[in-house]
Amino acid sequence: MSTLVLLRHGESVWNAEGLFTGWVDVDLSPKGEEEARRGGRLLAEAGIRPDVVHTSLLKRAIRTANIALEEAGLHWIPVKRSWRLNERHYGALQGKNKAQTRAEFGDEQFMIWRRSYDTPPPPLAEDSEFSQHNDPRYATLPPELMPRTECLADVVRRMLPYWYDAIIPDLAAGRTVLVAAHGNSLRALVKHLDNIDDKSIAGLNIPTGIPLVYELNDDFTPRKTGGEYLDPEAAKEAIEAVKNQGK
Amino acid sequence: MSTLVLLRHGESVWNAEGLFTGWVDVDLSPKGEEEARRGGRLLAEAGIRPDVVHTSLLKRAIRTANIALEEAGLHWIPVKRSWRLNERHYGALQGKNKAQTRAEFGDEQFMIWRRSYDTPPPPLAEDSEFSQHNDPRYATLPPELMPRTECLADVVRRMLPYWYDAIIPDLAAGRTVLVAAHGNSLRALVKHLDNIDDKSIAGLNIPTGIPLVYELNDDFTPRKTGGEYLDPEAAKEAIEAVKNQGK
Repeated sequence: MSTLVLLRHGESVWNAEGLFTGWVDVDLSPKGEEEARRGGRLLAEAGIRPDVVHTSLLKRAIRTANIALEEAGLHWIPVKRSWRLNERHYGALQGKNKAQTRAEFGDEQFMIWRRSYDTPPPPLAEDSEFSQHNDPRYATLPPELMPRTECLADVVRRMLPYWYDAIIPDLAAGRTVLVAAHGNSLRALVKHLDNIDDKSIAGLNIPTGIPLVYELNDDFTPRKTGGEYLDPEAAKEAIEAVKNQGK
Repeated sequence: MSTLVLLRHGESVWNAEGLFTGWVDVDLSPKGEEEARRGGRLLAEAGIRPDVVHTSLLKRAIRTANIALEEAGLHWIPVKRSWRLNERHYGALQGKNKAQTRAEFGDEQFMIWRRSYDTPPPPLAEDSEFSQHNDPRYATLPPELMPRTECLADVVRRMLPYWYDAIIPDLAAGRTVLVAAHGNSLRALVKHLDNIDDKSIAGLNIPTGIPLVYELNDDFTPRKTGGEYLDPEAAKEAIEAVKNQGK
């Protein structure tokens, strides 16, 4: 048996402004920093001590991990990072206002882009200011792996190799693993863990800054479907708030 | 040829209060945070881009790395940590005031404890509030490796295996390596790099928050003895200030 803890980063500056973010590397807002601290406090209060943390390559997840671990007195644990834990690439929507996009394209198209399992938004233009082509953190990613837009199915496909090759070995070694990542990379992982079908996953929201704890069997399946949030009441409220985004 | 960058953490809360710190895990002071930001700015201005960072297990070095790398836009690079990069263990002096210790034990004894190569301070008592015996970060260190006091010779002995087994392989792979650590673990490394004898090392001080850059030959010896500080004027002033500590 092993323990997996998922932590979605707190509010970013662009979350606060209602913009699609994706792979754009925006920082946490002050509220997001406070959410990260709460995440660390909840871990410490529950007596859960991650032995290793895995993060995406994006600042809002990295700082959430740093802040939460400092709060829990675990700033010294080993860190591993991968682009495979990055947020879903939101393509041409990156940098656009969510409410404006909804008004411009209509509720149906908006919900397809946000929640359809297999329809990605239009790709990001090569010459976009948000293009990651000259970003050194992706310098070793060949063109065929470098996304210009992604649907959740794409995220599942590129995230799963990291689950199998990097996270499971840590769990298998008996380590308690913290994954500090994003709404959609964590939804992709939860979809796999809880064996959620392509349609039902649309209804799953993961709140920010509240650790979601899975106790896993020896075959790395959850002992309890859906895991347990360390603050179930706050999680419930936050899930409702996410549902109302862009309204 | 490869590049090694050494960064001593900025002022800690106990540095500011004039206390011996050693393995006690005190945080950076606000001034120390600013020094870390300056370190990151100097790296960015010099166009030096570490591919990987190595830190000790102590918060003041970890946060210095985090802050400097955020400032340089390199928060996403791989991180490795080891107790072998920790500050010298100051034994029974940990938590004691430097000026008081100097007054109580006299200049000669004070300088022996601070700068003698092979005379450690008295060991930390087993029941000290600063004992690391129940600290989970050292849970895998067997008793024979767990220091209760250290002289600089001890630091050289326990640091060098990490240089050979963890840092050199990164350099050999062509990576620019940042080491964010402490006054004495970095002095130990510089002693080795510059082949400084046991007596002369007493006169070497490394300033806080100013990256020290070594270009290395293929056999990992420095192309230029002593390396180069990214802000040589500031380094010179800071070295003078360190010399006057405890006066």
